[in-house]
This record gives sequence, C-alpha cells and structure tokens, in this order.
Amino acid sequence: MTEINKNKSLEELGEFGLIDHLTKDIQLKNPSTVKGVGDDAAVLDYGSKQVVVSTDMLTEGIHFNLMYVPIKHLGYKSVIANLSDIYAMNAHPKQITVSIALSSKFSLEAIEELYSGIHLACKNYGIDLVGGDTTTSLTGLTISITVLGEAEKDELVYRTGAKPNNLICVSGDLGGAYMGLQLLERENEVFKVNQHTQPQLEGYQYILERQLKPEARKDIIQIFRKLEIKPTSMIDISDGLSSEIMHICKLSNTGCRLYEDKIPMDNQTKAMAEELNINPIVAALNGGEDYELLFTLPIGDYEKVKNDPDITIIGSISDANEGTNLITTGGSAIQLQAQGWNSVK
Amino acid sequence: MTEINKNKSLEELGEFGLIDHLTKDIQLKNPSTVKGVGDDAAVLDYGSKQVVVSTDMLTEGIHFNLMYVPIKHLGYKSVIANLSDIYAMNAHPKQITVSIALSSKFSLEAIEELYSGIHLACKNYGIDLVGGDTTTSLTGLTISITVLGEAEKDELVYRTGAKPNNLICVSGDLGGAYMGLQLLERENEVFKVNQHTQPQLEGYQYILERQLKPEARKDIIQIFRKLEIKPTSMIDISDGLSSEIMHICKLSNTGCRLYEDKIPMDNQTKAMAEELNINPIVAALNGGEDYELLFTLPIGDYEKVKNDPDITIIGSISDANEGTNLITTGGSAIQLQAQGWNSVK
Repeated sequence: MTEINKNKSLEELGEFGLIDHLTKDIQLKNPSTVKGVGDDAAVLDYGSKQVVVSTDMLTEGIHFNLMYVPIKHLGYKSVIANLSDIYAMNAHPKQITVSIALSSKFSLEAIEELYSGIHLACKNYGIDLVGGDTTTSLTGLTISITVLGEAEKDELVYRTGAKPNNLICVSGDLGGAYMGLQLLERENEVFKVNQHTQPQLEGYQYILERQLKPEARKDIIQIFRKLEIKPTSMIDISDGLSSEIMHICKLSNTGCRLYEDKIPMDNQTKAMAEELNINPIVAALNGGEDYELLFTLPIGDYEKVKNDPDITIIGSISDANEGTNLITTGGSAIQLQAQGWNSVK
Repeated sequence: MTEINKNKSLEELGEFGLIDHLTKDIQLKNPSTVKGVGDDAAVLDYGSKQVVVSTDMLTEGIHFNLMYVPIKHLGYKSVIANLSDIYAMNAHPKQITVSIALSSKFSLEAIEELYSGIHLACKNYGIDLVGGDTTTSLTGLTISITVLGEAEKDELVYRTGAKPNNLICVSGDLGGAYMGLQLLERENEVFKVNQHTQPQLEGYQYILERQLKPEARKDIIQIFRKLEIKPTSMIDISDGLSSEIMHICKLSNTGCRLYEDKIPMDNQTKAMAEELNINPIVAALNGGEDYELLFTLPIGDYEKVKNDPDITIIGSISDANEGTNLITTGGSAIQLQAQGWNSVK
C-alpha cells in the first residue's frame, strides 16, 4: 500500500484507498482473528467458545456535538461504548467492525483523527479491527460499530438471573458523564455568544474525562475472576441506572430497593450539580453515559466485595410485588422511573 | 409485550418500545443462536466452526432514493447485500444485527415496512435477527447491518487463491441492476416534471427486480457442494465486475483475460441500454449492484460447470505480467479499469 499524500482529497483517494489507508497499520493481536480487513468478510476462530455480539450506532447532532467533542475522543468513546456491552455479559471483547458515513465537510485529517481514537481504544483493550464500511452521507457523521467477543458458556451472565435478597452492586461512580456534558454545553453556549472567551473547565477534569474519554470496565470482569465471583445478572448502565435496574427486575421477575445514600458519586459530580442547580441523584439515576456495570450477587459474596474500592453495594433485590424502589436518605420509598431514551424529535 | 397502536408516535413509543415492537415476533431459527435480542449482546454457539463477519452501511440519498425505492424493498435489499458477502466466502450466513438511524420524517408505519422487508429476507434465507440499535438522526435514514456466518475451516474461499489457467466464472447475469436504476431515475425525472404521468416500466420487470429486490446466491454455494467444487478464489461482485476481478488478480498476484462476448447479460439489460444509448458492456463491467459471485476454478472443473445454467465461464487467469485485460469481441485487449466507488461529493 502506498503512502497517502495528506492533501489528497477523499474523492481522489476513493473508498478502497481510504479503507486501505485507515487500516494499513493494523497488527492483529488475537489468535482468534484468522483474517481481518481485506476480503468479503473477516474470519474468526473461537474454538469451542461462545460468540458474543453487540452493536451501537452514533449520529452527529444526537449522540455527539463536534463543537466540543474532539473527534479523536469520539472515536475512542465509540469503541468503549461497544466494549462495555460485552463486559456486561461477563465476556471478553476481541474484534470490532467500524462503519462510518461522512459528508464532504470532513477532511482526511479529521477521519484520520477519528480512526486514531478507534485504534487507540483497540490497542488499550487488545481488540482487532477486522472490517467495516466507509461511505458518503449527505450530512454529518454516523458511526456504527459491532463488537464480537468470546466466553465459555458457563461464564456468561444475562439480565435474567437476579434473585430476591441478592446484593445490587455498581462499579465506579455515577452521574459524572452527565455533569461533564452539562459543563461542556454551558461553555459552548458561552462561546457561541463571545468567541473570545476561554472555556472555564478548571477543577472539572474528572467529569470532563467521564464524558469525553470514558473507559470500559474490563477490570471488573478481571476482579470477578480473581474473587471467584459470578454475578447472577449484569447490565451495562450507560442508559442510566434507573432504567437498567428496571430492566434487570423485569427480566428477572423481581423488585428492588436502591438506597439513595449508597449511590457512588464523585465530588466533582456533586460540585457541578450544585453549581448548575441540578439534583445530583437525578444525574446518577438518569444521566447516562457512565460506562459502568450494574450487577447482582448472592448475599454470600458480601465479604468478597464489601471492601473493593471499585465496587459499591447500592441495594438489594426484592420480590416482584414490592416494585422497583429508591429508598431516599429520609427513609421514604419512591418508585423508580425509566428515562433512558433520547426521544425522537 | 403490548400491542402497539398504529397511530402512536415514535416519540411516545420510545427506543425500547420501538425495538420491542419491531422484534417481538422473531422466532429464532438457527441452533447456533443461543440468545437473540434482549440482553447487552447476542450469544451464538458455532461449535468448532469458524465465524465469518461482514458489515455494510447504506445512507439515504447516496445508496437509495425513497422517491422510487419502496421502503420494504430497501429493507430486503439491505439484508441481501450483506448475505452476498458471506456466500462470497463460501460460508453460511446465520445471524444479522440491524442498526438504523432515522429522522422524524419517518412514521412508525414506514419503519414497520422497512422491517417487514428485513424480516422477509431473514425468513427466505434462514437468518436470525439477533440485535441492533435504533436511534434518531437529524436527517434521513441510515441502515447498518452486520452479518455473521459459519464455515468449516477448509470450506472457506478467500480472494487470494487464483492461479494462472484457472477458469473465471460468474453467476447469473450482469448489468441488470444498473439498467434498472437508470430506468427508475429516468421515470422519476419525468414524474418530477409532470406528476400526472404514470411511469413507463412495462417490459422491464426483470431489470427492475434486479435493482429493487435482488437475491443473494445461496444456490451457487449449494451447487458447489453438489458438484464437489471448491473455488480457488471468490468475491462478491456488487461493486462491479471490473473492480472485483482486479481485486482477485491483485491479491492472488495474477493477471486475467475476460472475454467481452462471454459476459452474461439479460435481453432486458441490452434493450434498456440501447434505449438509453449506453454501452451494455459498461453496465456489466462497472454498473454494480448485481449480487452475483465471481470465482475461479481449476481447469479440471470445466466439465462440471460448462452446462450449468447459473454459471458462465467468462475468461481465464493469466500471469501477473500479462495484466488485467478485457478481450473485445473484435479480438483486441483493453486494460480493465476499476470504477466501483460512489465518489465522495
């Protein structure tokens, strides 16, 4: 493959030239990747393991705003969002395919930046990029990623296995990505009014990172192996804690009690919420984009996880007829509401 | 899951309601589908077989025009395009994921129509829809499909195995989808000028079907099994015969001779080409969207395929230094040109 002149336009490069260019440096990392980019299909060999597949689509103006999201970060985050779904099965992501549709406003440099973020995520998580599609759109950028992973049959954790008296646990802390987004949007509004202002982002590095460059919880899956834990149910929580615990309860035919005062939040999340006059618990319950794992454990695992700094016990599973409730700091029970959907506008 | 009121808006339905609604009637068909829609990821069990993965993205205004493409057909064709890539590996497609981004101009009925085409293709080819994403876009419709299939390791056919003196074969006939598109575009232009005219489509049913409701060549893969043939190389030809034989030659380090007078074309393709003053061989070489298979066979297989009505021998593989040539009806050699890309505009 030939060296691409940076000034060459996407039109001159053409589809195959662009794909060659974006994938030429790929070094396959996984023994399960038999054939990556370059044929009608990729070929994978998982031996006798089960194949786990998930897919996500992100559209400009709905899921991201390139006014304040660096395009390299967007590439990175797009991969992370998919990996998180595979970890939520207690499985190991191994390969991704990446399809993008882009309009003529994007330069080759911008696409290279996007892919540099994608390649970085692949490198950090040991993932092979094995295929995809690159095409034109009339407006904006759409990114569609499919991730494939593997697991032994008896390792897999579904949403259906929660049982009354199970502990409800969550990894990391919640609400940060949402508050980071509020901060970025505020500063973007200020910038639109006065383009000479510098954004006021000091002191909020953590929540900005939660929004712009999140990580997926590969470490939690590893902790499970180390502690010899297998959750009874698990789900990726990026659509919001509230809607996702309701999914688990519905599919497991249970209820739940979440304790408001147990829900982990970072100090920056709380500070930003106070500054913007937002109830931080709402950000934690419904904000979304926290690529954390929500899972349930038999009560017998309590001793194993109670001191783990990456895991917080936030409640317990109850009978279905008790409903899905948040127990407030004041001790009253409030029925949970799902709000995990960007409504069609 | 509850019955959806047809008049319910997409906004009221929400993402999860829409996914539930579009996937509620799915009956899994393949033993390899362990878990379909409804968890963080689908789970597949291919035993010891290899996994084959391909993906395609289609955008409104670039790949399709809803002015004259019925949206159900679009759904059907989107699946076919992906299946064809798996057959081109000599493998068996088993599952797909479907992600769509759509703007508010689409009604629930339109999305149901799109999915009815998707479900019909799945039914006809024995495919399970196991996942996907449904999201909003600011404009238009984008469809991204990923297909997974299986094959025994020694069944797989790559693009790299063509050898000098191999026969070059193609399934079906070529140029029809392109000429069908020209016809549809002509009638659409007439309609835009005078909305009382009826489109003149009589006598061109075949090329319209090639464009609007193509099929993938599952039958060719079955013929290979029956005739005990394994191609030395194979590729899906939907980007055009010319560019795809060049791919095979490049990746196999060979040249080729294609014979103009051997290239199979339907009479409707030729008639439409004449009517529109287009050289039909250009439609066959570069028109694209014919979901046919191009493959190479050892010369010893000649007797097995020479009388097969679905397979045409169109040339032979030569040494790389002879180049990639079309031998015209007049007997002169013309170097092939690739033109398989919708340029970025």
